[in-house]
Amino acid sequence: MEGKKVIGWAARDSSGHLSPFSFTLRNTGPEDVLLKVLFCGMDHTDLHQMRSEIHPPTYPLVPGHEVVGEVVELGSEVKKFQVGDIVGVGCLVGSCGKCLYCESNLENYCNERIFTNNGIDKDGTYTRGGFSSAMVVHQKFVVKIPEKLTPEQAAPLLCAGVTAYSPLKQFRDSNKVLRAGILGLGGVGHVGILIAKAMGHHVTVISSSDKKRVEALEHLGADAFLVSTDGAEMERAANSLDYILDTVPAFHTLQSYLSLLKVDGKLIIVGVATKPLQFDSVDLIIGKKTITGSFIGNMEETQEILDFWADRGLSSMIEVVKMDYANKAFERMERNDVRYRFVLDVAGSNLE
Amino acid sequence: MEGKKVIGWAARDSSGHLSPFSFTLRNTGPEDVLLKVLFCGMDHTDLHQMRSEIHPPTYPLVPGHEVVGEVVELGSEVKKFQVGDIVGVGCLVGSCGKCLYCESNLENYCNERIFTNNGIDKDGTYTRGGFSSAMVVHQKFVVKIPEKLTPEQAAPLLCAGVTAYSPLKQFRDSNKVLRAGILGLGGVGHVGILIAKAMGHHVTVISSSDKKRVEALEHLGADAFLVSTDGAEMERAANSLDYILDTVPAFHTLQSYLSLLKVDGKLIIVGVATKPLQFDSVDLIIGKKTITGSFIGNMEETQEILDFWADRGLSSMIEVVKMDYANKAFERMERNDVRYRFVLDVAGSNLE
Repeated sequence: MEGKKVIGWAARDSSGHLSPFSFTLRNTGPEDVLLKVLFCGMDHTDLHQMRSEIHPPTYPLVPGHEVVGEVVELGSEVKKFQVGDIVGVGCLVGSCGKCLYCESNLENYCNERIFTNNGIDKDGTYTRGGFSSAMVVHQKFVVKIPEKLTPEQAAPLLCAGVTAYSPLKQFRDSNKVLRAGILGLGGVGHVGILIAKAMGHHVTVISSSDKKRVEALEHLGADAFLVSTDGAEMERAANSLDYILDTVPAFHTLQSYLSLLKVDGKLIIVGVATKPLQFDSVDLIIGKKTITGSFIGNMEETQEILDFWADRGLSSMIEVVKMDYANKAFERMERNDVRYRFVLDVAGSNLE
Repeated sequence: MEGKKVIGWAARDSSGHLSPFSFTLRNTGPEDVLLKVLFCGMDHTDLHQMRSEIHPPTYPLVPGHEVVGEVVELGSEVKKFQVGDIVGVGCLVGSCGKCLYCESNLENYCNERIFTNNGIDKDGTYTRGGFSSAMVVHQKFVVKIPEKLTPEQAAPLLCAGVTAYSPLKQFRDSNKVLRAGILGLGGVGHVGILIAKAMGHHVTVISSSDKKRVEALEHLGADAFLVSTDGAEMERAANSLDYILDTVPAFHTLQSYLSLLKVDGKLIIVGVATKPLQFDSVDLIIGKKTITGSFIGNMEETQEILDFWADRGLSSMIEVVKMDYANKAFERMERNDVRYRFVLDVAGSNLE
């Protein structure tokens, strides 16, 4: 018996241009969830992958790893979901399940993790993402969308949201008002501001120009705005921050940001730069400073950020578009012309 | 009334050559301790300072910041010591006492900390170190040498020892056997091995050649030895260490060491490199790895490492020399020809 036939939009070559593509899902296994895709966030990583800018993909490539859908069929062993539930799938759809990291709920660091698209699933099938009318995913990698959240609001939380939340979680229960810095105001950065504010931190947005000052302070509720190219302003802010969430996905010099940190302060890198980054060892030593990294989040944290978002009544800034606008949306994303995340209305695009 | 006249050995210019030098100590103030110097460790930093390789010193410069002495006079307010006590002085003799760091027992990170030599003390006098027959030091910066420790054994603990202990302390009470790496086998590295072993860790010494294998394994009790230039051996050791204490005081590439760390592993830098160090952000992100620094330790930790050393019956490897050998000893230190620390027998050198 063959699995369900679906329609996705796929890139066929490194031009990255998306067009309709018909393929077959695997049958819903005993531990699987079949979901009808409702919405899917659009991320820079999708673009890099479609254009073969990370590691060479297998085409046709169906992108999308911020997927919100409705459960339409359940495997016999699946108890935690019901048909009709609104659920989410993020960057991962599998891991080995046996290593130290999987056993410690750190499956996002498992060496055999399976990505939601451009990966090979355990049954040997090629994984295809949420730019598609439906998906089959192992239940371990499916989370519940809280009732209070609309599905389009939930989508960006499944990658951008948990990427910001996972490293910030350590500061969640601080008994003093922490001074936070958010470096880079894109998909992850804007969610980072909202999370840090909801945790009660004093949030400074750090940007290379003054352009986003009003957005940061008025639209997103940041407490302060710091222009990194203004030497005098940076000098005044020296040794003032407990941590900086560094979302810049490109080469940047770290020294001036490290100087903003207090003793014992942390620079947390979540954006991959293609060239090596540099630091002066004396800055780390004399200031007891830390540079660290964080990679998306585990499934527990993915559920936590959804619940946190719903509990606190947070709202991300998104622009909902239809599938036939996807190519245009990626073009605009590349020019940074989006506040702050495109979300595809997949169900509303009538793919089938 | 003038203070006590003493004889030290001082560098007069950037040749760094030491020769006898007579100077006057300040009077013993109400919070001060006057100590007769017994032994003093010799550190690379002394050499750098004497030769004006860090920031330009004021000559004559009397080095020495691993000082063990006998209390000969006490200020009226000093209650915690008695005449005849054997005490220690490390890298610092003062700090502001009022800042956030001083109030949090992090006086080693105070911006106004006063170094034991080549600093300006609160009374305006120039600080001179332990290559001298006597010193006057504020009681806050004096620690007690445990009775079980000989004074010459205690000396290297006051800088090298606490530099290794302060960052390792966080791992002291781990309930599993942590896998430790020690990078660089000098003054700090060798003490680091002994401390990590005493904490119950599995210790791997990482070195650029095979030369120190026997020393590391047989003399210092390390569990494993890894040659960093052996690609196959490094590959086998990938993702195996919980932390690395990096004591290398020169430029080195970090990537191969970061690859040795497990997820969530820490590279702790305590040796200052004069050129910027580099890393790939993806290594930190995908592996949730951390690069951090640590600067000597606070006074509480300085007392702790002395007590820890005495309690565990540890013994560092030192070579005791007289003051008239000091110039020769620095020459040998520069060639790495010391196992692992020179300690000056100051009292036995009959300076006065």
